[in-house]
Amino acid sequence: MRAVITLTTDFGLGDPYVAAMKGVILGINPEANVVDVSHSVRPQRVVQAAFITQCAWPFFPDGTVHVAVVDPGVGSGRLALALETPRGCVVGPDNGVLSSALPEEARPPAAAGLARVKLPEGYRAFSITNRRYLLEPVSATFHGRDVFAPAAAHVSMGVAVHELGEEVDSMLALPPLRACRRGDGSLEGSVLHIDRFGNAIMDARADDLPDGPFEVDVAGASVPGPAQTYAGAAGLVALIGSSGYLEVALPNGSAANELAIGIGDPVLVRPRR
Amino acid sequence: MRAVITLTTDFGLGDPYVAAMKGVILGINPEANVVDVSHSVRPQRVVQAAFITQCAWPFFPDGTVHVAVVDPGVGSGRLALALETPRGCVVGPDNGVLSSALPEEARPPAAAGLARVKLPEGYRAFSITNRRYLLEPVSATFHGRDVFAPAAAHVSMGVAVHELGEEVDSMLALPPLRACRRGDGSLEGSVLHIDRFGNAIMDARADDLPDGPFEVDVAGASVPGPAQTYAGAAGLVALIGSSGYLEVALPNGSAANELAIGIGDPVLVRPRR
Amino acid sequence: MRAVITLTTDFGLGDPYVAAMKGVILGINPEANVVDVSHSVRPQRVVQAAFITQCAWPFFPDGTVHVAVVDPGVGSGRLALALETPRGCVVGPDNGVLSSALPEEARPPAAAGLARVKLPEGYRAFSITNRRYLLEPVSATFHGRDVFAPAAAHVSMGVAVHELGEEVDSMLALPPLRACRRGDGSLEGSVLHIDRFGNAIMDARADDLPDGPFEVDVAGASVPGPAQTYAGAAGLVALIGSSGYLEVALPNGSAANELAIGIGDPVLVRPRR
Repeated sequence: MRAVITLTTDFGLGDPYVAAMKGVILGINPEANVVDVSHSVRPQRVVQAAFITQCAWPFFPDGTVHVAVVDPGVGSGRLALALETPRGCVVGPDNGVLSSALPEEARPPAAAGLARVKLPEGYRAFSITNRRYLLEPVSATFHGRDVFAPAAAHVSMGVAVHELGEEVDSMLALPPLRACRRGDGSLEGSVLHIDRFGNAIMDARADDLPDGPFEVDVAGASVPGPAQTYAGAAGLVALIGSSGYLEVALPNGSAANELAIGIGDPVLVRPRR
Repeated sequence: MRAVITLTTDFGLGDPYVAAMKGVILGINPEANVVDVSHSVRPQRVVQAAFITQCAWPFFPDGTVHVAVVDPGVGSGRLALALETPRGCVVGPDNGVLSSALPEEARPPAAAGLARVKLPEGYRAFSITNRRYLLEPVSATFHGRDVFAPAAAHVSMGVAVHELGEEVDSMLALPPLRACRRGDGSLEGSVLHIDRFGNAIMDARADDLPDGPFEVDVAGASVPGPAQTYAGAAGLVALIGSSGYLEVALPNGSAANELAIGIGDPVLVRPRR
Repeated sequence: MRAVITLTTDFGLGDPYVAAMKGVILGINPEANVVDVSHSVRPQRVVQAAFITQCAWPFFPDGTVHVAVVDPGVGSGRLALALETPRGCVVGPDNGVLSSALPEEARPPAAAGLARVKLPEGYRAFSITNRRYLLEPVSATFHGRDVFAPAAAHVSMGVAVHELGEEVDSMLALPPLRACRRGDGSLEGSVLHIDRFGNAIMDARADDLPDGPFEVDVAGASVPGPAQTYAGAAGLVALIGSSGYLEVALPNGSAANELAIGIGDPVLVRPRR
């Protein structure tokens, strides 16, 4: 059955792990169109995976099966989840890596951090335990290959998500990736991701921003915004990037290198006077 | 519709950008076979993209839709082009990145550098503006996802290229990647690319070379040529590589490391006496 | 014809080489599903390719055509092989890179190193020479594109393997990747691969190991084993990884960095008293 299955992992492309997952999928669904989202998530950084999937998953068609495996708890008691959503099915460990499949209002408040949440209307989750849909024997260290790849492949073949195992009514989720608004109208947040161009992307979105011009304080510098495009700017600028998040960019250069910005660095956005 | 679409960008594989393009394509053409040419073009190096596409595109079947996005001018007034050629359609920004889709005789002379050229017989170009074939709203910073991916996907579904927007009669193109022949029969050129093996590839082709043996002066060394294969050589050799360009290689080693060769370094090829 | 073809090379993903192979394949079989196993094999490291293919190939369905190209001898007299196995066809140079397609008992003893072996029952090998199935002209430096890609694509279209060229009755193969058992029950081996997580994988398998607890001596440290999973461990542990090989791991860290382990480092596994 011609179906799209996407993969997001921290496995890299040099090791045989991603290929083994693809082999398992194609053994179950020879027609599957397997698409890599990214395998460059830093080892075990669940938050980065949630950011990357949030930027990529919405652009895939309804019915796509998304697999996300960043799984430091593999072999422990953490559940293996298949989450049915209005747009399709996502599978991965129950550790927050599937957060971006949930609507923001169903995710925990910022203060709570990673927390267990009830599933909203239209969403159902199942613990993947039905041995018929696993690769036996299931190893203790590679559920990407032995649990998540076969589960996704079977769903892409038409197996109902609820056949994968027993229903659960909650899952672990990360808060929305959004900076905190302070009383004076400024925003306190942090750097989520640095892309290949050296753009430093932070957890503020267009509708979080102050009206009118603002300054972004990051890594000891103050960067003016908003710009509309990279093309017009002469130096460092802040703009809403293609993912809908505020980013600090240096056209034809790397803002992250220029300012020595790192993932997790604090950022302050304040109205410009 | 089962069609091949290739992607060449400077986006890397770690960020969500390439995956978002693929999601957009598969939303329009679920049967598309999307093939990565390279996403490792150095940020904004249009010339390197032209070299890589010139080495890869000719091996794809007729009817393939090729997308090339190295786009420092995104969001400025530069046109978004769809170029119809006798072998298929290529799409990308009008900044020279589509150069290798044109025959060499239609490209500007070496002295002109990047320049606007008339389209030769059998080639037609269109400015991609028809909103029916774009992803709305079009962002100011990511036309790969919002303009080029959907345009390519629609063409792969059978939309005629001329439906994408108004015809234009010229486009920006780079000169052919060919060294200059001097009066004494020697060639002056430069290093175009260094591959993963450390082979330093320069802008000279088999029919540019002097008859008989020659020396290649690069990075302070003189390397003899031509060799036929890597296998027989004991040290540094010059040979025509698989892309048809002269390269300096060190069998079982890296010529680029051994001689500290960099992209853009000058090269002189002279007949050996 | 919808068939799976996998590629394992040392070409990297930044150069046009892998894309050229895919273009050639799709020109012959437009329906082929081409899957990358890895292109990050270190240049010319045939043993690493044999390890990676051994971990990935078994998970692909019967009938998959596997291509492995790590080919320092390209252009020399080494044969280009197509090997018919009970599970499908593998193609690549005759230099040991296809070793993992053979059963272990057909491979040379450890003391022999890379050696020529007779083909066992159910396996037939052919020297790829039939020009009908090559890309003409065949270059002297890139048989991945000109010989192996087209041969694999034709086989995926239903061409019988024996039509590719004349049969040969032996091929070069590497010994099984297994440590040596010493008289005192300990194992002497070496590090085969270091994965993206910094797990150091060695050439010992579950059934090679001593009964009961053991110590792994590597890079000046003694690491206890066996652990069952990464999740439970507080520090360095040894466990059987997902590929069936013993590995030394540091949960939420990199064992290879912590101990400065390199590929090829000697390892001793001894029963713990």
